[in-house]
Amino acid sequence: MDAARLHEYTDDMADALSIDEIDAPTADGPHDVIIEVTGAGWCQTDNHIVEGMWTDYVEQTLPMTLGHENAGIVSEIGDEVQVVEEGDPVICHPVQTCGTCRPCRLGEDMYCENSAFNGLTTDGGFAEYLETSDRAVIPLPAGVDPAEIAPHADAGITAYHAAKKAADELVPGDTAVVIGIGGLGHIGVQCLQAMSAATVVAVDVKEEALELARDLGVDETIDSSEADVTDVVASITDEVGARQVLDFVGRDDTTALAPDITAAGGDHHIVGYGGHVHEPAQALVNGEFSFRGNLVGTYPELQELVALVDRGDVSLHTEHYDLEEINTVAERLEHGEIEGRAVISP
Amino acid sequence: MDAARLHEYTDDMADALSIDEIDAPTADGPHDVIIEVTGAGWCQTDNHIVEGMWTDYVEQTLPMTLGHENAGIVSEIGDEVQVVEEGDPVICHPVQTCGTCRPCRLGEDMYCENSAFNGLTTDGGFAEYLETSDRAVIPLPAGVDPAEIAPHADAGITAYHAAKKAADELVPGDTAVVIGIGGLGHIGVQCLQAMSAATVVAVDVKEEALELARDLGVDETIDSSEADVTDVVASITDEVGARQVLDFVGRDDTTALAPDITAAGGDHHIVGYGGHVHEPAQALVNGEFSFRGNLVGTYPELQELVALVDRGDVSLHTEHYDLEEINTVAERLEHGEIEGRAVISP
Amino acid sequence: MDAARLHEYTDDMADALSIDEIDAPTADGPHDVIIEVTGAGWCQTDNHIVEGMWTDYVEQTLPMTLGHENAGIVSEIGDEVQVVEEGDPVICHPVQTCGTCRPCRLGEDMYCENSAFNGLTTDGGFAEYLETSDRAVIPLPAGVDPAEIAPHADAGITAYHAAKKAADELVPGDTAVVIGIGGLGHIGVQCLQAMSAATVVAVDVKEEALELARDLGVDETIDSSEADVTDVVASITDEVGARQVLDFVGRDDTTALAPDITAAGGDHHIVGYGGHVHEPAQALVNGEFSFRGNLVGTYPELQELVALVDRGDVSLHTEHYDLEEINTVAERLEHGEIEGRAVISP
Amino acid sequence: MDAARLHEYTDDMADALSIDEIDAPTADGPHDVIIEVTGAGWCQTDNHIVEGMWTDYVEQTLPMTLGHENAGIVSEIGDEVQVVEEGDPVICHPVQTCGTCRPCRLGEDMYCENSAFNGLTTDGGFAEYLETSDRAVIPLPAGVDPAEIAPHADAGITAYHAAKKAADELVPGDTAVVIGIGGLGHIGVQCLQAMSAATVVAVDVKEEALELARDLGVDETIDSSEADVTDVVASITDEVGARQVLDFVGRDDTTALAPDITAAGGDHHIVGYGGHVHEPAQALVNGEFSFRGNLVGTYPELQELVALVDRGDVSLHTEHYDLEEINTVAERLEHGEIEGRAVISP
Repeated sequence: MDAARLHEYTDDMADALSIDEIDAPTADGPHDVIIEVTGAGWCQTDNHIVEGMWTDYVEQTLPMTLGHENAGIVSEIGDEVQVVEEGDPVICHPVQTCGTCRPCRLGEDMYCENSAFNGLTTDGGFAEYLETSDRAVIPLPAGVDPAEIAPHADAGITAYHAAKKAADELVPGDTAVVIGIGGLGHIGVQCLQAMSAATVVAVDVKEEALELARDLGVDETIDSSEADVTDVVASITDEVGARQVLDFVGRDDTTALAPDITAAGGDHHIVGYGGHVHEPAQALVNGEFSFRGNLVGTYPELQELVALVDRGDVSLHTEHYDLEEINTVAERLEHGEIEGRAVISP
Repeated sequence: MDAARLHEYTDDMADALSIDEIDAPTADGPHDVIIEVTGAGWCQTDNHIVEGMWTDYVEQTLPMTLGHENAGIVSEIGDEVQVVEEGDPVICHPVQTCGTCRPCRLGEDMYCENSAFNGLTTDGGFAEYLETSDRAVIPLPAGVDPAEIAPHADAGITAYHAAKKAADELVPGDTAVVIGIGGLGHIGVQCLQAMSAATVVAVDVKEEALELARDLGVDETIDSSEADVTDVVASITDEVGARQVLDFVGRDDTTALAPDITAAGGDHHIVGYGGHVHEPAQALVNGEFSFRGNLVGTYPELQELVALVDRGDVSLHTEHYDLEEINTVAERLEHGEIEGRAVISP
Repeated sequence: MDAARLHEYTDDMADALSIDEIDAPTADGPHDVIIEVTGAGWCQTDNHIVEGMWTDYVEQTLPMTLGHENAGIVSEIGDEVQVVEEGDPVICHPVQTCGTCRPCRLGEDMYCENSAFNGLTTDGGFAEYLETSDRAVIPLPAGVDPAEIAPHADAGITAYHAAKKAADELVPGDTAVVIGIGGLGHIGVQCLQAMSAATVVAVDVKEEALELARDLGVDETIDSSEADVTDVVASITDEVGARQVLDFVGRDDTTALAPDITAAGGDHHIVGYGGHVHEPAQALVNGEFSFRGNLVGTYPELQELVALVDRGDVSLHTEHYDLEEINTVAERLEHGEIEGRAVISP
Repeated sequence: MDAARLHEYTDDMADALSIDEIDAPTADGPHDVIIEVTGAGWCQTDNHIVEGMWTDYVEQTLPMTLGHENAGIVSEIGDEVQVVEEGDPVICHPVQTCGTCRPCRLGEDMYCENSAFNGLTTDGGFAEYLETSDRAVIPLPAGVDPAEIAPHADAGITAYHAAKKAADELVPGDTAVVIGIGGLGHIGVQCLQAMSAATVVAVDVKEEALELARDLGVDETIDSSEADVTDVVASITDEVGARQVLDFVGRDDTTALAPDITAAGGDHHIVGYGGHVHEPAQALVNGEFSFRGNLVGTYPELQELVALVDRGDVSLHTEHYDLEEINTVAERLEHGEIEGRAVISP
């Protein structure tokens, strides 16, 4: 089968992956599930993986097929698989978990001690077939096209996971600021709106992104290339600040907003990772705010997001590409030229 | 009356405060409470105030009587005061709150929008008499000497506040690391032990501090001047890491431990503020840990701490000094020569 | 001034209250606030008070002016009042709290140890003027008419309080069942929809009530006079049951649904109190569900509800009456002839 | 092998079970684990099962080997088992869960939609060998004798589960009341003490039970056969009531204490199920308390309890019997003649 694989780390996105002919996977283990991939989202994290930015954090063996936002049709299952049957349309959580370590038993499966992450530590879905397990597949409701919602497998649950943590802290009258209305951010906004009655304020430097935010019905938008975010947030919140901030950018200049825009006791959620957090400890003490790291959501959270999609509460803005165009997609995202999310159909 | 007052910011602790003769306060307002101070703790924050380190965060008008850890005997009350009577021994929460703003109504009185903080934004307790309000005094149980427990008014509730947040996340089998077993840290250790069944690991660079930790019954101690904290924590926790870290130091080198010693989903609580937090956003994402700022606890938390003291669950190590010796205390704390907590008796 | 007062307990609603001429209250205390009442909601609890059903639970001295859902214009304030000024339109929380007891300090002001409850333990708002305190008044946003939203002062925050507890437990894909779509229930439905993305199922015996629920956009309705609620809930939830049940009726036959319709680990919230809870302890053990009592919400919760109203997320169905018609209102509610909520304008 | 089996429901405990010779189980499935049972606790629930009291709640096929509190040595494992090896000493969670249904994925494995419960819905451990799965076994720390701690498999985690929920709501100064200091209650007391700093009050009708409570260091004891529990709790709590009540009896007269001894907003946890809850809905509204059902704890909670045992925080009072004496044990428990917990060694 054809697969788009990373052979060596590079900053040249035009030469990121090569299309190789490799053996298709088979369901040899009792819990194996093989998926015929019909859609696989390209993510900013794919650019970061190509650049070698994850080598300090996880073990990677090259060449490796990338692609961690996968959906498609079940084509083969192992002997013990109960949750799906051949022919089922599914979305794939990117992480295959062991199910028996303590984090898995606690439901915190993203902290699994024996996991494999498609397209990050094992082969992913930029290929005709994907090997995963019965702990990573979720059947789709009737009428939901796998290729349309593939990006929810990572962009979606990451945004949902952060928005859910934020929504848990928000009550009517509170304000939530969402920084970066791109692939994740535009999902995060919709999740916040579905799960809270907070005032939602969107911040971005691109007019198209703010336009998208307004289309989604946010209460306020701030063009941070022109306006002073601190002043505007102070004005919107009567000097109280935002109870929750979702930072889908994570650059030095966005994390630096925390002490100035976050309400006392509030949280600045780090979802994007374009830079650093850097603050005097005294600033965190004085404002009693937190920088909270955010990883991909859990398997049950992907079920919850599918429920939101099924209710019509969250829609995705996608562009579709063939497998051969994958490096073009890599380049375009690097240059900020993708609106919403790019999906590869192998 | 005599009061130890700050006239100008200085790095010279030998010349920190001057003993002035000023008018004693009176209970003019309906909610005023006047305290004859019998004990007032000296805090690292007092050194920071003398150095001018809080001028960026709060409004200060000099000269000002310092002292935010106060206890004593009620000597006069306003017309509307119901919670105490003249002659009652009390501990004083350092913050007089308005009681009607939304944070006060929510019980988050430390975020009061109309507050005064003794010894930080208004006159404090290094004086014969202190003016405070009925929202800031807590009667003491029989047998508790105000002069002995004055430091709980700030050191105590700050440590308690952080330990309570940590204990809420800890279950048996989890590990909590406490960095810095000084004035606050030795209280934090006892609060953790009283409110959780976690394994408690104490980290310090001073053998006396680690000795104190062992006397308090911690499960493990690490001398960070000799051992590699990351390795030892990994060993104690079977590579899982500490679910909760209480950092009573807050220097660059202690906050830098977070990605290496904190378990996935865990928290590194910033209580001390000797330096900065500085990490790649990717580190917070990869480990999904948080840096959580910590302010002084609330009034009800001071009630809870008094209950712990009354149960015998938390004891204080104190040294006692006269008001005239106050600059000596400032110098000795600056040089790390105070064991436990210094209390001034005006 | 004219006031509608209860002189003796009776089951005859036609003779419930008498319109008496009494002295208008004045702001004698420093925290007193006098309201010119422009709207006061009549509540099922008023019927219960008239019947003497609260005498086992609280102290009542007759005669007493009833009315605990009050809104109007501030006409006089005491010396220490900061939160409102004369002429401000306000909604009145029904409970005047002391502000200094531990529950008040914790923000759980409904458990205040020194409280007075308008129309239940002290004079209420079925009168031209109402005496309350600065801890019980909330200024209204521009454009909100006090007479229109008076019922939020009790019906509203009670429904909001219960819905908020439920929403905290609900995730997308979960089901919430609301029993009784009357004065409180129709507010509860809207609060659930604003604060969660759960599937909302409305249960009632009256077609008009179910019609109202459908107008509000609930996902499913069940006419419990015809259908088997257990069967329908099982079908809607794939046999899982409802994670949260809001029982605004609280009769023997509605509380008896709990073991059959509540999901494992779920809650059956008791808001209405028309009857008893009666179950084998084994049923609670087997299903690990809870019966959770619900009281009026707190002052900050009334602020949150006002924010929801201001956002347009919660609308009230009201009928308006003159003070002279008050016993007619009592009778009509007794006979289930009030749609939504009756508001008296003294 | 020998196994103690229930052939028909009876109230005659002298004739409860018969010792049958049946085939020993083998590890045929990939996740099967076979245990050589060295200790199996007898539980009040066993008496209830013998009486047929669970037939309304679960499916049972007789004859069935009883015994749901099992521990022993792993004697055989299936091909996919990773968590234990032959020869490992283990404690067995009574429930084999599927691992893939939504409750399992959430970590709420007690709500598993495809579970088997040893000695309740499938064969249990009153036999030489027990068949279970890799999702139900927890290796024991060195030095912990399986036969000594077998009762933790159900009595232990049930008490731990309830105590953990209570401890999450308790702060220093609060009071917890424990009703019934028997097999579960004496564990519950220790769990509360380890995980909270609340005042613990023990209630029982037997002097031996209260003596045991005092030996465990509770703060107060109440002999409910002599004293008025309501009066004593009011006195201990300054009229506030107990924030949390753990009712290990669950009879009509113990559940009836709830409105009188539970603090506003507090919980009465139903663990024992000897009778009914029966209250006016108005009582739950007025006091805003909850009746919270309690089931067996989860697998991770059994890990946490093993950690508590390993720390020395929880000790068990056990009596040991041979398999042949099993009906004697049933009778003695029925007559309240077992102190602590009876363990059968097959």
